[in-house]
Amino acid sequence: MRLPSIPEFDKETAQKAADRQDKLTKPRGSLGVLEELSIRLAGIKGEEYPSLINKAVIVMAGDHGIALEGVSAYPAEVTPQMVLNFLKGGAAINVLSRQANARVVIVDIGVAYDFGEVPGLLNRKIAAGTRNMAIMPAMTREQAEQALQAGIDVINGEREKGLDIVATGEMGIGNTTPSSAITSIICGMPVKQVTGRGTGIDDSGLAHKISIIEKALSLHQPDPQDPIDVLSKVGGFEIAGLAGVIIGAAANRIPVVLDGFISSAAALIAAGLAPGIEYNLIASHQSVEIGHQVILQKLGLTPLFDLGLRLGEGSGAALAFPILDSAVRVLKEMATFADAGVTDKG
Amino acid sequence: MRLPSIPEFDKETAQKAADRQDKLTKPRGSLGVLEELSIRLAGIKGEEYPSLINKAVIVMAGDHGIALEGVSAYPAEVTPQMVLNFLKGGAAINVLSRQANARVVIVDIGVAYDFGEVPGLLNRKIAAGTRNMAIMPAMTREQAEQALQAGIDVINGEREKGLDIVATGEMGIGNTTPSSAITSIICGMPVKQVTGRGTGIDDSGLAHKISIIEKALSLHQPDPQDPIDVLSKVGGFEIAGLAGVIIGAAANRIPVVLDGFISSAAALIAAGLAPGIEYNLIASHQSVEIGHQVILQKLGLTPLFDLGLRLGEGSGAALAFPILDSAVRVLKEMATFADAGVTDKG
Repeated sequence: MRLPSIPEFDKETAQKAADRQDKLTKPRGSLGVLEELSIRLAGIKGEEYPSLINKAVIVMAGDHGIALEGVSAYPAEVTPQMVLNFLKGGAAINVLSRQANARVVIVDIGVAYDFGEVPGLLNRKIAAGTRNMAIMPAMTREQAEQALQAGIDVINGEREKGLDIVATGEMGIGNTTPSSAITSIICGMPVKQVTGRGTGIDDSGLAHKISIIEKALSLHQPDPQDPIDVLSKVGGFEIAGLAGVIIGAAANRIPVVLDGFISSAAALIAAGLAPGIEYNLIASHQSVEIGHQVILQKLGLTPLFDLGLRLGEGSGAALAFPILDSAVRVLKEMATFADAGVTDKG
Repeated sequence: MRLPSIPEFDKETAQKAADRQDKLTKPRGSLGVLEELSIRLAGIKGEEYPSLINKAVIVMAGDHGIALEGVSAYPAEVTPQMVLNFLKGGAAINVLSRQANARVVIVDIGVAYDFGEVPGLLNRKIAAGTRNMAIMPAMTREQAEQALQAGIDVINGEREKGLDIVATGEMGIGNTTPSSAITSIICGMPVKQVTGRGTGIDDSGLAHKISIIEKALSLHQPDPQDPIDVLSKVGGFEIAGLAGVIIGAAANRIPVVLDGFISSAAALIAAGLAPGIEYNLIASHQSVEIGHQVILQKLGLTPLFDLGLRLGEGSGAALAFPILDSAVRVLKEMATFADAGVTDKG
């Protein structure tokens, strides 16, 4: 497949933002990460005063054949149930997005349920769930490419409605399992060092989950140099779709706020397909899932906060939006030393 | 002086909030600190669905005689200049409060400048700055009590306008110096372990600052068991005023969001005067100032985030407001498993 090209970080505009930060009425650097974010966003967007008015959280939902192996604390029927909850506005991501003034875009990219025509649900279903990767590849190579393209198409559609920044979210019972598999392969780490309890399995459940992932990796031998091979053998449709969202956003200078472990596994795939894309990614939070920090380190990203979250849906990313709003408003709205008649440091 | 009494944490209402969190459509505990915050706020306010609509950041401004000793990177004239910047809306705290939908209350509690009548400035001036604590006590015991009372009065005035939650902020060139002195005495730590670079002094400036604080403490021998003795000998008017704000807020079940080092030094004084008040305090961020973590540990508080901030003004506390809003909205607005028809974990 042909991927869109990724523009370069706009160093000149970022430097203008940095110069302005140094003239604002505060000790230089005293707003720490807020200053850095405003400068990064200026460079990503190529705007001296980056605008973040139009925000969206794109939530991709998909099911996983591997759920049959008992890797999750919840049954697979929860995936479509939660999709319906999203559409009614009752899930955490709905509440957090209202607070953040972001719209929520729900995409069925591979749920094992026939929703029919449901208002508000984007139907981009590739298949009714992946296959059980403990036995066979999760999807075909063609399906992996279709899911990537679906993500790119979704971001292009949202861009036409107005989109200044996007957050990644997902729903899919069992999806920490493919995320751990992807992380293990691409980061070259043992499975047990990148596998956590997901929605809340116990010790024996965790040991079982690790052995299942090890079995799948041993069976399929995905090629870490070929992200689509990894996706198709041990990935998930929502992970592939989010990788497409991440690439499509970067192609359009739309910064991407990553949520937790699954979103970051998608970013690993995206970075494999489009090296250099990392500058366009903002890590919102440090998830409880132990594989998350391995990915963030690989991508060179530092999360903004750690609130002990392990929900997914885009919840941590939505929580980051007000911090990003604050960063760009400081850059635009604060007075300079000269304007305010405040004596600068000698 | 007589201090208002502090109500107890409402365990019963907190338990109701905890019970509801366990019924919402997410794995139990998966929203981590957000869940804990919503439960704490329910218990603080005695409201099953705590409301945080009316928010204020109270910024107390004062000058410090110790600034004459060259302990700050900025000259003392910056204190009144920044007060005027606050009143014009050009400072960081103005921008961050607009983003957080909080009003900013600016109080002159001891600036060494005659503002005359300025719209929007609350005049509660105790004196035109403290005295130089390297030579004499910073203030009289009576002045310390007046400043505490001024803080209590300010919070009562704001409460009458409607106030659901309050953040503490301050401005005062040189005020990390009294904050380090207070922290050293009350936490029983060597001065050099609780003294940082403030707005940005260099290595020799830092060594000088430490020696000045050591000199003042040696000269006055403040009694760590007597917070008003500590305040009067090595404190500051804005620190005393904020201690009053913190006590007055707790007396009225108004949760207090602490900013950084100076606000937390005020909380140390408040906790000394009103033991048990800690439950009413929410630590917003971990400041760059090294003494801050010592105070938070002493008060048993965990900050919500660390964004490398060292500005003061209430900036970190204002950034925490949207997180708190998110916490109470999750509690109130999310659907339960039963309502949404989502299968719960077995």
